[in-house]
Amino acid sequence: MEKSLEKIRHSFAHILAMAVMDLFKNVKLGIGPVIENGFYYDFDLPTSLKPEDLEKIEKKMRELIDKDLKFKKELISISEARSLFKDQPYKLELIRDLEKEGEKKVSIYRTNGFVDLCKGPHVKSTKELKVFKLLKVSGAYWKGDEKRPMLQRVYGVAFQTEKELDEFLKIQEEAKERDHIKLGAELELFAISEEVGQGLILWLPKGAILRQVMEDFIIQKYFENGYQLVRTPHIGSESLFSISGHLEHYKENMYAPIKIDKEKYYLKPMNCPFHLIIYKTSLKSYRDLPIRYAELGTVYRYEKSGVLHGLTRVRGFTQDDGHIICREDQLEKEIESAIKLTKEILETFGFSEFKVALSVRDPKNKAKYLGSDKMWSLAEKALAKGIKKVGWKFEREEGEAVFYGPKMDIKVKDALKREWQISTLQVDFNLPERFDIFYIDKNGRKSRPFMLHRALLGSLERFTGLLIEHFKGAFPTWLAPVQIKILPISDKYNSFAKKIGKRLKEENLRIEIDKRKESIGKKIREAELLKTPYMIIVGEKEKKRSEGKKEEYWISVRSYKKGELGMMRFSKFVEKVKKEIEKKVI
Amino acid sequence: MEKSLEKIRHSFAHILAMAVMDLFKNVKLGIGPVIENGFYYDFDLPTSLKPEDLEKIEKKMRELIDKDLKFKKELISISEARSLFKDQPYKLELIRDLEKEGEKKVSIYRTNGFVDLCKGPHVKSTKELKVFKLLKVSGAYWKGDEKRPMLQRVYGVAFQTEKELDEFLKIQEEAKERDHIKLGAELELFAISEEVGQGLILWLPKGAILRQVMEDFIIQKYFENGYQLVRTPHIGSESLFSISGHLEHYKENMYAPIKIDKEKYYLKPMNCPFHLIIYKTSLKSYRDLPIRYAELGTVYRYEKSGVLHGLTRVRGFTQDDGHIICREDQLEKEIESAIKLTKEILETFGFSEFKVALSVRDPKNKAKYLGSDKMWSLAEKALAKGIKKVGWKFEREEGEAVFYGPKMDIKVKDALKREWQISTLQVDFNLPERFDIFYIDKNGRKSRPFMLHRALLGSLERFTGLLIEHFKGAFPTWLAPVQIKILPISDKYNSFAKKIGKRLKEENLRIEIDKRKESIGKKIREAELLKTPYMIIVGEKEKKRSEGKKEEYWISVRSYKKGELGMMRFSKFVEKVKKEIEKKVI
Repeated sequence: MEKSLEKIRHSFAHILAMAVMDLFKNVKLGIGPVIENGFYYDFDLPTSLKPEDLEKIEKKMRELIDKDLKFKKELISISEARSLFKDQPYKLELIRDLEKEGEKKVSIYRTNGFVDLCKGPHVKSTKELKVFKLLKVSGAYWKGDEKRPMLQRVYGVAFQTEKELDEFLKIQEEAKERDHIKLGAELELFAISEEVGQGLILWLPKGAILRQVMEDFIIQKYFENGYQLVRTPHIGSESLFSISGHLEHYKENMYAPIKIDKEKYYLKPMNCPFHLIIYKTSLKSYRDLPIRYAELGTVYRYEKSGVLHGLTRVRGFTQDDGHIICREDQLEKEIESAIKLTKEILETFGFSEFKVALSVRDPKNKAKYLGSDKMWSLAEKALAKGIKKVGWKFEREEGEAVFYGPKMDIKVKDALKREWQISTLQVDFNLPERFDIFYIDKNGRKSRPFMLHRALLGSLERFTGLLIEHFKGAFPTWLAPVQIKILPISDKYNSFAKKIGKRLKEENLRIEIDKRKESIGKKIREAELLKTPYMIIVGEKEKKRSEGKKEEYWISVRSYKKGELGMMRFSKFVEKVKKEIEKKVI
Repeated sequence: MEKSLEKIRHSFAHILAMAVMDLFKNVKLGIGPVIENGFYYDFDLPTSLKPEDLEKIEKKMRELIDKDLKFKKELISISEARSLFKDQPYKLELIRDLEKEGEKKVSIYRTNGFVDLCKGPHVKSTKELKVFKLLKVSGAYWKGDEKRPMLQRVYGVAFQTEKELDEFLKIQEEAKERDHIKLGAELELFAISEEVGQGLILWLPKGAILRQVMEDFIIQKYFENGYQLVRTPHIGSESLFSISGHLEHYKENMYAPIKIDKEKYYLKPMNCPFHLIIYKTSLKSYRDLPIRYAELGTVYRYEKSGVLHGLTRVRGFTQDDGHIICREDQLEKEIESAIKLTKEILETFGFSEFKVALSVRDPKNKAKYLGSDKMWSLAEKALAKGIKKVGWKFEREEGEAVFYGPKMDIKVKDALKREWQISTLQVDFNLPERFDIFYIDKNGRKSRPFMLHRALLGSLERFTGLLIEHFKGAFPTWLAPVQIKILPISDKYNSFAKKIGKRLKEENLRIEIDKRKESIGKKIREAELLKTPYMIIVGEKEKKRSEGKKEEYWISVRSYKKGELGMMRFSKFVEKVKKEIEKKVI
């Protein structure tokens, strides 16, 4: 975010707090930071804020802004701060935190009578504050801690121009219509049930088909690219996750253990330890490398119930997880191939804009990383080269690498230009050591291979969420759970519709027949609501023209995207649709 | 087992105990029951029995048998028994158990000086005992309890004729060679690792491919038969398994709970509760039925570590699980279709002998079952009719039904005529009530549907174990992990081999190229050991004849089953193999 915009948004947060204090009694202030597109402020209030209250607050804010109030910074001592905020328990807690961190002075901002504990920066005066809107109020625990009080968080957005605000609100509106939770229910793709448990996805028949098509496609791509499929259990013993280091470094993401007899088992948070055990089931020679294991492996990771969200924040999800184990001289080629495959697959799913980040070590703090300088430099160069080779640009982010190796992350932009973190490719200098994996080199000596982690679609759940929102539920024919809906004009034509349905099924097309006693208008409208790519309408006209023609029917076709296509021969329609599917037309 | 054979085997157990007591000092006797094909006896001995000891014991047994000893039954009081077995602590424990059960007298058998606590029956004299063999000795906990002493269990087999014994030993030998654990390792299909945990299968690349082919096939069959795929998580909340009744009736098979925040979650032991929750995500009308949900769902069930065995007794396994929810008037047809599909699929996998059991209520004890007489009779009739319709016979087993409905179990016979419990079809009068599932009938009223559970292959792990043993690892081409192995005669022909390999991959065939510097003889021998259906041998002869022919190579082909097939055109070979795969030739 631009610095000036950040100042503006932060200043709006103060004005919001001022307005609330003007309008309500006994207001206890939480915090009021800048966020993407705007700001929020947390309040502890005796009453619940309603939508009408937001209007009132917004009006009051405009009044305050019109007064051309100034923002003034002061540095005061901890004890001065304590007395200044003596009626503000949350602020007092923040002051105590600052004191614990060793601060002697704290920074405050004054705006007329209002004063806030705040580092700034702010605008000079409220005349710089113009374009804003309060969006909503929702509950938020103090410090995000479920055991602390629930405060009321008022969200607002702020921009430099009215045009930007309008655009934002339009996209918000559009995003609501594309919301994968809403569409997921309407299109009967998935469900989440309180009885089964939060953050656990039930794939309904239409969602399961979609996922099956995705999986078949990527498994096919794996085979074409020399990957070997493996399958591993969903639980693993304590000893496995001790070797891997997950119990040491990743425990907060893991669920409580299950005791079996005298041993502890954990739901797996990652597949890698299992793949390395598979690597070790036989002695490997330099001729056996590279080995590329792939698994659609379901992992379980802890998320607080408050952050769970549809398919995108869940407690169990399936990664299209792969691990490449190779020799040093193969590293560059393996990385390049993995990036190429990622690009190919993401493009097949209809994405064309990517944002690539290459995370490397913090050069000032090399000691905190594993692996030699040589290994880091080799891996970084290979990553950079691979990214360039497919024609992508990237941002090099120093200090963003994990302790065990450099990585590349790919965000894709959806139809609303929103960024989704999807693919990742990571070099790992740690696990090969921990599992002591090796191969026998040309000279008969044990040698340590390189290891890459890669996930192309990331989580299949999350990726499906992205697809739903990107396509607004109108999936391309190759992905659509129901590709063709057959709509008989009245139930006189149901048996004709069934004949056509049978023939389409034989062609491996996914169809449904709407045999209800409803008007054709209603049937079409409902098929359109379900965003079915093709509708076949059959009535007297079609039946008559098809009579006596055993294998060649005449049908009327309607396309979701292109409207009426008119009457056509059955075989021509099948050919058209099958070509579209085969080519994975978006 | 015939009554007379049972008497013979039981009598051999006594003679075994007699022989051991003659040969060793301080023998404490456990129990000595009849088992399939023979008998065993458990001993607490100061020394470990070695294979040589078995020979000695066998010799001693023959000596005793030659003496024409008589078996004599007596009924004695508990206190007499106590003094008779005063030096036999395990027998004393059994006497105490009998006393607790309310017995006043116990039955003993005397054979010369030897006496055993035993209900009988036995043969009259040892001259009836002729054909037997001691097989092995292994450890067994007293009463199967890991906390009690480990005894030495001596196993023997006994038959009425030498011919039967020879046949049994031959099959034993053959079974050893077919052992799926041995072959699973040799063919690199699966592994079990101490680090990951007991009873948890790691599918190695070749096993994972085999499983993928099996899954693709059954999913395709599901679609053809009107099933809808669903996918559900591997854990579910306590409340789900309370509704389903699993926590009440099935807890001993479930693992300890995982605590997430304040709730308890369990690894799922079955998929049905999840499928019923899916059913309930929307209101169903009579027009929506039948609904057939299918899932390849991985479940986790507790097994003691002592009984775990390869793929056949595991702690986590994947069921090809399906649930059919239908109206009463659809029940018969649904059952018939399910049985038909089961038969079709089992036959496709190469099985032709089946043993079908229909388990119904105990007519004398109707109170212990759920559901009305009408429902039981309807379901039983439908099952019987469906079984007959596919041309199977069945045994009707009264009292073998579970409390919630009648069921049909199918055992298949493998190449050694051993029976494996595989498929099951079960009517459930319980879960529809517990989950309160309903549909709206023609008259707009809520109506309770029927529910069927069915698994065709049962557990995919177990079924794979069966396939390995049935085919002795020599899978039919459509299932074989590697269908074709290309063997260049020397590394001069490696690039030619690669060209051929590339073309075969384009035809979606699963191939490997043996590029090692080994003799062609060794390469062929090793490919045969791995039971690869086809070998393509390429050398000077083949290369020369192929020169200048871009798309049409000449290759020499060897079949695992039929030996040398001679030189043939590449296209002819591909056509032949693809036809074999498409037709799923066994």
